[in-house]
Formats: sequence, structure tokens, C-alpha cells
Amino acid sequence: MWSDLQPVGRSAQSGGYRRFAWTREDHDLREWFAAECAARGLDLTEDRMGNQWAWWGDPDAAASRGAKGVVTGSHLDSVPDGGAFDGPLGVVSALAAVDSLRSNGFEPAKPIGVVNFVDEEGARFGVACAGSRVITGAMTARRARSLTDADGTTMAEALKRAGRDPHQIGRDDDALRRVGSFVELHVEQGRGLVDLDHPVAVGSDIWPHGRWRLDFVGEANHAGTTRLEDRHDAMLGYAAAVLAAREAAITHGCVATIGKVAVTPGGVNAIPSAVTGWLDARGASPRAVRRAVSDITAMVEQSGGKITQESWTPSTPFDASLSARLGTRLGGIPVLGTGAGHDAGILANAGIPTAMLFVRNPTGVSHSPEEFAETSDCLEGVAALTAVLEDLAGDPA
Amino acid sequence: MWSDLQPVGRSAQSGGYRRFAWTREDHDLREWFAAECAARGLDLTEDRMGNQWAWWGDPDAAASRGAKGVVTGSHLDSVPDGGAFDGPLGVVSALAAVDSLRSNGFEPAKPIGVVNFVDEEGARFGVACAGSRVITGAMTARRARSLTDADGTTMAEALKRAGRDPHQIGRDDDALRRVGSFVELHVEQGRGLVDLDHPVAVGSDIWPHGRWRLDFVGEANHAGTTRLEDRHDAMLGYAAAVLAAREAAITHGCVATIGKVAVTPGGVNAIPSAVTGWLDARGASPRAVRRAVSDITAMVEQSGGKITQESWTPSTPFDASLSARLGTRLGGIPVLGTGAGHDAGILANAGIPTAMLFVRNPTGVSHSPEEFAETSDCLEGVAALTAVLEDLAGDPA
Repeated sequence: MWSDLQPVGRSAQSGGYRRFAWTREDHDLREWFAAECAARGLDLTEDRMGNQWAWWGDPDAAASRGAKGVVTGSHLDSVPDGGAFDGPLGVVSALAAVDSLRSNGFEPAKPIGVVNFVDEEGARFGVACAGSRVITGAMTARRARSLTDADGTTMAEALKRAGRDPHQIGRDDDALRRVGSFVELHVEQGRGLVDLDHPVAVGSDIWPHGRWRLDFVGEANHAGTTRLEDRHDAMLGYAAAVLAAREAAITHGCVATIGKVAVTPGGVNAIPSAVTGWLDARGASPRAVRRAVSDITAMVEQSGGKITQESWTPSTPFDASLSARLGTRLGGIPVLGTGAGHDAGILANAGIPTAMLFVRNPTGVSHSPEEFAETSDCLEGVAALTAVLEDLAGDPA
Repeated sequence: MWSDLQPVGRSAQSGGYRRFAWTREDHDLREWFAAECAARGLDLTEDRMGNQWAWWGDPDAAASRGAKGVVTGSHLDSVPDGGAFDGPLGVVSALAAVDSLRSNGFEPAKPIGVVNFVDEEGARFGVACAGSRVITGAMTARRARSLTDADGTTMAEALKRAGRDPHQIGRDDDALRRVGSFVELHVEQGRGLVDLDHPVAVGSDIWPHGRWRLDFVGEANHAGTTRLEDRHDAMLGYAAAVLAAREAAITHGCVATIGKVAVTPGGVNAIPSAVTGWLDARGASPRAVRRAVSDITAMVEQSGGKITQESWTPSTPFDASLSARLGTRLGGIPVLGTGAGHDAGILANAGIPTAMLFVRNPTGVSHSPEEFAETSDCLEGVAALTAVLEDLAGDPA
């Protein structure tokens, strides 16, 4: 399976993946998923947003008798120049776990579902987990349709070009009603398991997470002829904010990153009239994040800049009893929080009992071509997921 | 004349001008220039690069008897969101000066030329004064053809699309042989004349000027899950360099600007793996500029970055005797250096006796929609240029 996925959307230049929602690459990945499900005799359905759900067993019949499905899976899209594991590892492991259950002669008491969520990374339209957000109602269909990519294409237009009806998308209670529990396996995006010397962990929660826009206004002018004392250079405030963000994160024990910047007019010989930076801050403690952002705000305002909160997501705990059940079943497995958002977090917020499994990442590198997991650890992940599915789907209650 | 030019290439959003070489806007401006010259009975010729030269009198016949032409003019293209005066003021003033000479019944002893240089700003292909550089041989035709714009279009392709033959471009000694002296009038791009309380100045020289590329390498990683101690964030070194550049400029008495930056991967939730900034540094003294850049280099290298010189242009003095003659003719006019490059500098380096006139800019703002000059000062500029042309072209020697 893995080898079929390797070439899709891989940049020859960087070795990283560029698999963005509703593109040719995305289409190919969806076709691959459909073919793998067909080869296993799983029944493929799509919800209103185009998330792909493949079922072993009849989820509607089971749901009507109170035995909702046990679902696992992840996503196949990527960030720009992303790695091979983020997303695909969860989808491939789900299919491998189904194979493993079948070769063990397992007979599920509840239907088992494998899901491929669309547009998890939000690399194209800027909102992460768009696929799960829309079907749970966490994002309205209207807002989703109006999101634009870097070329100014709206999601509605992208859907149309991909042969889909943009007016079809929306909250999908029918799809959610089939899901009794959701377990997402994912490569770890840090080095927690390296420090703990363990191949697999259960997730505890997703850290609180916010994004802020930092706007600095200057005055466009000629870089050669304008005296220093006459300048209003928006880049200076921005630079001070970048350094202040790191300082504040150290002080308060969280993480803060400015990874995106836009400069107007952006010419080599023009003093910037406007610089906008985007701050991403997260941490195990919401108080630490708030305090760090408060320090950064002080520096931004001191430079005459403005800071605007674009999003704030409180801590998302996974289902405690489900997570405990995974821990018991897998025996002495470590428990880790994560600073990354996942479709699992969106489903958890929608009231679906949800858990996560993380597979060790030796370098901790993520969202990069260097992202990696040892094959032996990936197999440990599949074994853990197999055991969990057997436990959950084997239990008729 | 001025009112015809106002709408061409003006952005409704910013109020600034977007007049880039070999675009529709550029074409319209060239047509406007041709029509104005035709209305005055001037003979329009184009050199191998497409710079437009309009002649009052026969420059070849005059050159063959040793009376080369007196040329004035400037350019009609703009930087992104540029002002209305930078370039056009010199072209419009040249035509107005011709009108003024004619209404005075002046009979030139030498031919008078009005020139519109193409692609002075280098806004599209990155090299300023491309029009004058190519015809003087300061840039080879091969290099010019291979320059690319932001969309990856080469200058050769742009020329073709504008209906021109890219293999025609190159050094043009025939065009240069006609030019005995060149006087470019330009709006001042600083506030020197405001401080001196004078409407017009003569230029002394173009400051030495360099550009450097600053490369910082980090490691792409997830902004939420990577511990601070595991990060290699390329943005931090960049930010320190921006602040160091301003500090160094203050210390050594020159100007230094970082107005352009590129971030990889440039995602809100990705730690930057590479940040490249471009430094522009200039000053009246080459030693001051070199010292400032040496300070900035130390800071860049301390952050693990690399600094590469992309260009260095020594101070370009204008022709001393020609400038003195202008000063005498105009009586007690101030003399100013400039930090900006001009076609006049390229022609001066090619050995053509060259001078400049600057018109007061009340705010000093340039390369911006706020760029401005009072009508009364512009008329003083035309009067000065008229007097200079009368003096130079009236003298048969």
C-alpha cells in the first residue's frame, strides 16, 4: 500500500508532499483509497462534504439496533512540502488493521469503519480539519464555500472543478450517527515517545491553541533617498515582535511561532508600508499561552502595531473512559498530550467518544520531508490499533 | 498632458501606479508618448531596446558635422503602487520645455531629443535601468533576455508578447552617438530641497549602492508540537538582522533597508526552514556603507546565516563641467546628491556628459501613491530645463 502512495504529489525539488484538497493529487489519493477499500470488500460511502467512509458491516442496520460503528482512519492531504506519514500513516494502518483482524478470523459484533477525511491540513483554504468541521457543523457550509486559496479560488469553485456540488456540503448527522467511537492513529509530531523510549502512546488531549494576526503600518518610501529620521519602516516592529514571541514562550513555558509574513510593497528598494505576521501559540496550559500572548501584545503595541485574535481553541480532552480502555487493553502504554489539531479533536468536540494513538517519531520532525517513523514502530502501531478495534468492535455492548 | 497620463495603470485599490515594462499599461504610455511627439512634429525613433527618442532636428546629420544632440527625458514605468511623478515628471517637463522653447521662437543650433527609457524601475524583471543598461552594454542582451518576472515569464517572452523581437535587443552605439549631453529632470526622492527652501537643484552624484541577500536556514517543523529546545527557526536570525541593519545605519551614517523577505514553507503552523531577506544599503560615503554592512554581516553570521553581495555600484558623479554650466545658467541653485539610481547614471558611466535636475518634494515620499510635487515647483522645473536646453542647444560649439 505504502509504495503506491509514495509518488503522489511528491515534489521532485524538495522531496516533500504537496497534496492539497480538491486537486489532481487529492483526486488520485481518493481513487487509491476507494480501490483499497474495494479490494477488501468494504462498502464505500461519502458524506455531504466528501469525506470517504468505508464500512465492514452495515452501519445503518447496526446503528438502528443501538450498535454504532467503531471507526478509525485519518487523512491523506498534506501541508506544503509535508512528510509522508502525517495523515497517510493513520489511513494505511487502519486498512492494515482490518487485514490483520480478518486474517485472525475476527467477526465484528459492531461494524468497523475506515475514514479518509478531506482537507485536514487546511493547506489550501487556511482552515484546518475542514472536512470534519463541516459535517459536525463546527464550520458552516456558507463559510466553507467562501474560503479562498492563494489564487483567489473559493472552495465552492474548487469543489465545482473537482466535479462536486458545492451546495451539497453541510452538516451530516446521518454520517455521524453511524459513529459510536473514533480512534485516530497518527505519527507523533514531537519527541515525547523518544524520551519515554516507547513505540506507541495514547493521546490525552489537544493543547489549547490560538492564532493572532500582527499588523504593522509604516510609510512606503524610497530605500535610497529617505533619511532614517523620516522613515516609518513597518519591518522593524515586525522583527521586534518575532524576537519577543520567542522570549515570551521561554518565559511562560509554551510555544510561539511566527512562520508567515506578508510585506507591502515588498520591493528590495522600498521601505515597507505594511508588514503582517501570523502568530501561532499553544501550550499544555491555557494560562501560559495567554500570558505569553500578553507579553507579545505589549511589544507589538509598543511598536505601534496591532494584534488581532483570529482563533482560539480551548484544550480538547479525548474521551477519558475510551482512552482508559485503550490504555488497559494495550498495557502500560504512555499517555501524551499534543500541540497539533486533528479531526479527532473536532469529532470529540461534536460529542463522539474519541481517542488517539501516537507512533514514535525518532526526530520529532513533522510537516517536513524529514518526517519519519521506523517500520518496526509503524507495525507496533498497527498491532495496537488491531487490538483496540478487536476490543471495541468485538464487544456487542 | 498630465491629465491624459493620470488614469493609466492606476490601481483603484491603492491609488498607486502599476506600470510595468512590456505590459498593456506600458504599451498605452508608449502610444501616448508617440502621439505627443507626433503632435509636435518631432521625429520618433526607437533604439534596439525600444527606448523611444523623439528629435527636433536631424541628429545624424548634426552628429556627422560634430554637433551632437542635447537630450532630456526620463521614463514612464513605475514601481508597484508607485507615485505619479517618478519618471513621468521628467518626460512631461521635457515636452513642456520644447513647447516653451518654440513659443519663444528659439532656433536650436544642435538637435534636441526627448527620450522615454523603458523599464527604468526594474519592477518586473528585477534589474533597474534595463533600457539604458542594454543599449550602453552595461547589461548584455543575453542576460536581459533571461531575466524572469514573478510569473516566470522571461524578458524575451515578454518582448515577444509585446510584438517585439527579443534577438533585436543589444548595445546600440548608433543611438548613443547622437547624444552629446543628457539632462534628466526628476522629482526629488527626499527632503533636501525642503530643508534648503528651494524649488530646483542640480544633481552632484548618485550615491554608492549595494544589495545583499541574507539567507537563514532552519528546520521545517510543526509549530504546535516541536519543543523550543528542538527548534531551528530561521525567522529568528532574520528578525535580528532587520534590527541590526537599522542599528548599523544609525552608527555609520548611511541608510540600510530590508524591504523584501521570502519564507519557506511560509505556513502559519510551520516553523520556517528558510528565510531570505534582501538588504539595500547606500550612503554619501562608500566607507560608511561598507562599515554598516560589515556590522550586519557579523550579526547574520552570529545567527548562523549567510550574506551574499548581489550588486555593488560605486558612486556615479555627474559631469562636473556640464553640472557647473547648469548651475551658472540657473544662478545660485543648490547642488544635491541622491541615493536613487537613474538612467542618467547609466549614461554617465557610458561616458556621456550627463546632469540632473531635481524638483522639490514637500514630503520627501517616493515610490508611493503619496509622492507629490507642487504645480508651481513643477513649473519652476520646466523653466529651469527650458533655460538649460536653450543654453546647451543654442550653442553651436
